[in-house]
Amino acid sequence: MRRVAIVGVGHSKFGDRQDVNLRELAFEAVKPALEDAGVSPREISYVAVGTVGSWYEELFPAVPVAEYCGLSGASLVRVEAACASGGAAVHAAYMAVASGLTDVALVVGIEKMREVDTPLMVEFLGRGGSYLWEFENFGMTFPGYYALFATAYMNRYGATEEDLALVSVKAHKYAAINPLAHLQKEISIEQALNSIVVSWPLKLYDCSPISDGSAALVLASEEKVKELRADTPIWIAGIGSSSSTANLSYREDLLGIESAIKASQRAYKMAGLGPDRIDVASVHDCFTIAELLAYEDLGFCRRGEGYKMIREGETEIGGRIPVNIDGGLKAKGHPIGATGVAMVAEQTKQLREEVKPTARQAPLKNYTALTHNVGGTGHYCYVTILKR
Amino acid sequence: MRRVAIVGVGHSKFGDRQDVNLRELAFEAVKPALEDAGVSPREISYVAVGTVGSWYEELFPAVPVAEYCGLSGASLVRVEAACASGGAAVHAAYMAVASGLTDVALVVGIEKMREVDTPLMVEFLGRGGSYLWEFENFGMTFPGYYALFATAYMNRYGATEEDLALVSVKAHKYAAINPLAHLQKEISIEQALNSIVVSWPLKLYDCSPISDGSAALVLASEEKVKELRADTPIWIAGIGSSSSTANLSYREDLLGIESAIKASQRAYKMAGLGPDRIDVASVHDCFTIAELLAYEDLGFCRRGEGYKMIREGETEIGGRIPVNIDGGLKAKGHPIGATGVAMVAEQTKQLREEVKPTARQAPLKNYTALTHNVGGTGHYCYVTILKR
Repeated sequence: MRRVAIVGVGHSKFGDRQDVNLRELAFEAVKPALEDAGVSPREISYVAVGTVGSWYEELFPAVPVAEYCGLSGASLVRVEAACASGGAAVHAAYMAVASGLTDVALVVGIEKMREVDTPLMVEFLGRGGSYLWEFENFGMTFPGYYALFATAYMNRYGATEEDLALVSVKAHKYAAINPLAHLQKEISIEQALNSIVVSWPLKLYDCSPISDGSAALVLASEEKVKELRADTPIWIAGIGSSSSTANLSYREDLLGIESAIKASQRAYKMAGLGPDRIDVASVHDCFTIAELLAYEDLGFCRRGEGYKMIREGETEIGGRIPVNIDGGLKAKGHPIGATGVAMVAEQTKQLREEVKPTARQAPLKNYTALTHNVGGTGHYCYVTILKR
Repeated sequence: MRRVAIVGVGHSKFGDRQDVNLRELAFEAVKPALEDAGVSPREISYVAVGTVGSWYEELFPAVPVAEYCGLSGASLVRVEAACASGGAAVHAAYMAVASGLTDVALVVGIEKMREVDTPLMVEFLGRGGSYLWEFENFGMTFPGYYALFATAYMNRYGATEEDLALVSVKAHKYAAINPLAHLQKEISIEQALNSIVVSWPLKLYDCSPISDGSAALVLASEEKVKELRADTPIWIAGIGSSSSTANLSYREDLLGIESAIKASQRAYKMAGLGPDRIDVASVHDCFTIAELLAYEDLGFCRRGEGYKMIREGETEIGGRIPVNIDGGLKAKGHPIGATGVAMVAEQTKQLREEVKPTARQAPLKNYTALTHNVGGTGHYCYVTILKR
């Protein structure tokens, strides 16, 4: 298998982006990614576009994105894995380079969610649970699903609503100093706890917002890295993915996400290292409870101890493993197809020590980072381990 | 790059399949493919599902398909490339095995198009042209697009409506003896020429039908092929893909499809052979004119001579290169996400000399076959070259 490096990254402003159309929003990430890598669009021979977008007027979004960005002619595909579509696009482009089919690949993650009213969007996304059974029969949508995870977790391990709120407070603290974040403001634990209940115990501040945004990466083979004289290539040392049933009644329990456990084990094995070597991570905190489950699924702590990590500040800068110090899905925003790509873009910047402001830069010891991108309620999980 | 073989194929009945839901239709192809390969669902570590399906109630179709077929746990993704979604899924699974990330991969192509009324489906598909410009401003949908190709071609090279009709007559001749075909009936050239005009010069019998269907493939690495003791592995000797602009005004002309030319050149180069070595092929005849363009784009004849091939019977059994002797999109049917996978399933059967009835079996000289799957009006093209 050929080694694959990230040599260019781009990341649009996340938020309410009704000022641009789909292709323009993609361009905001693609242009800086190509410039960062020092390649022209013509040098890109494989493009994976991660997007869900069943609600777009553009039902086939990859082509207009490629056309507008000058990429027509390349091997092109749209990949979808619900909220893990970005991670799936990274995975596809990784395979294109690792297999030898291409030397330079581009990943674009993009979503324009605010074209649609929020209740309709919640319905659309709800169909990504278990449509025929849970959606049709019980009206389940995502806040409800993650509330089930939260109540199961609180009941079993004694975590509290305050623990969930702490995840949100941390996310907002870092989003406040991230100019690309959707919600650039700090919040207090009281604000989080007093916000309206969406699906108990989850309140407004436990839920990620509905955002527009894009991110892009240029991936290159080892030979191409030399040719491009990339200053600080960031290597994809491990990549793993897994899936799980839609129907929750087929799962063993709701105290963790099995696909995330499997995906991370595959990635750790491939990278030849364990969670103790991870300096900094982006995890899929679509709801605050999801971040606590991720700590455990990824092996950052033992089962049932995730809430202690947030209580003790272990996942802030200065703690053992800083997590989501870009604001996370919770406060940076969650344009679903873009999220997994944006995670890798963020961690590439972290490993290059290029994060601005430097107050958001994680200290590095092993120069190793991890991203964890989940689709549905763990229907999909994509984990990537990056090394400088 | 590791060698990749096809060791299992499955193909549902194409047609009006309102007797099954999405997951059941997938199972009709997945089950025989796994049995053919002699593998259990648990041995599959990568699954690519090719489907468009923006109109499904199931907006995230890969997960219920994987769940129903017992594939949960595998790396899973849905890939979309408009009508080339099947080809794109084959490409993704090929990369998964070739890169070394997985040893046994499954490709599922599926579409349920008849859930939606025909006029609405024509509108949906029309958005796969150039949405913002050609669809919104000129009301372009696919019969109109391919009528533009047809008139340009007839005007430039002197092909006639009869030549187009001959493509349809050939497709129906073979579909009549293919039990999996949607339209199992022969037609006369008079019937084709006298059918209602859809978009001149294209008549009803120049257009592929709106079909439901599925197909599946099991791909394996060379080592795994040995382990499975596969009788007749069919190797993917070459694979190539390319894309083109959505907006037709950016294309040089309408006398061929540039992405198909590029994709086939890449596939031929990788396989180390040219079009003269191809024994039998499946090409993307969404409209009759598309088959004539394919002969030329793939190098089966010179530019402007495609219509002579059909006139002279060169693409029937007994001719130089039998093409679409399963009935093609035109008469076997075109469930869009399934099409590209079904093409590879058909050519695998051809190379194994397992086609039934034997009247549909092509004579083999070089034991080499080709598939050509186009999305949009050449927005995407995926070409695969198979060798026994």
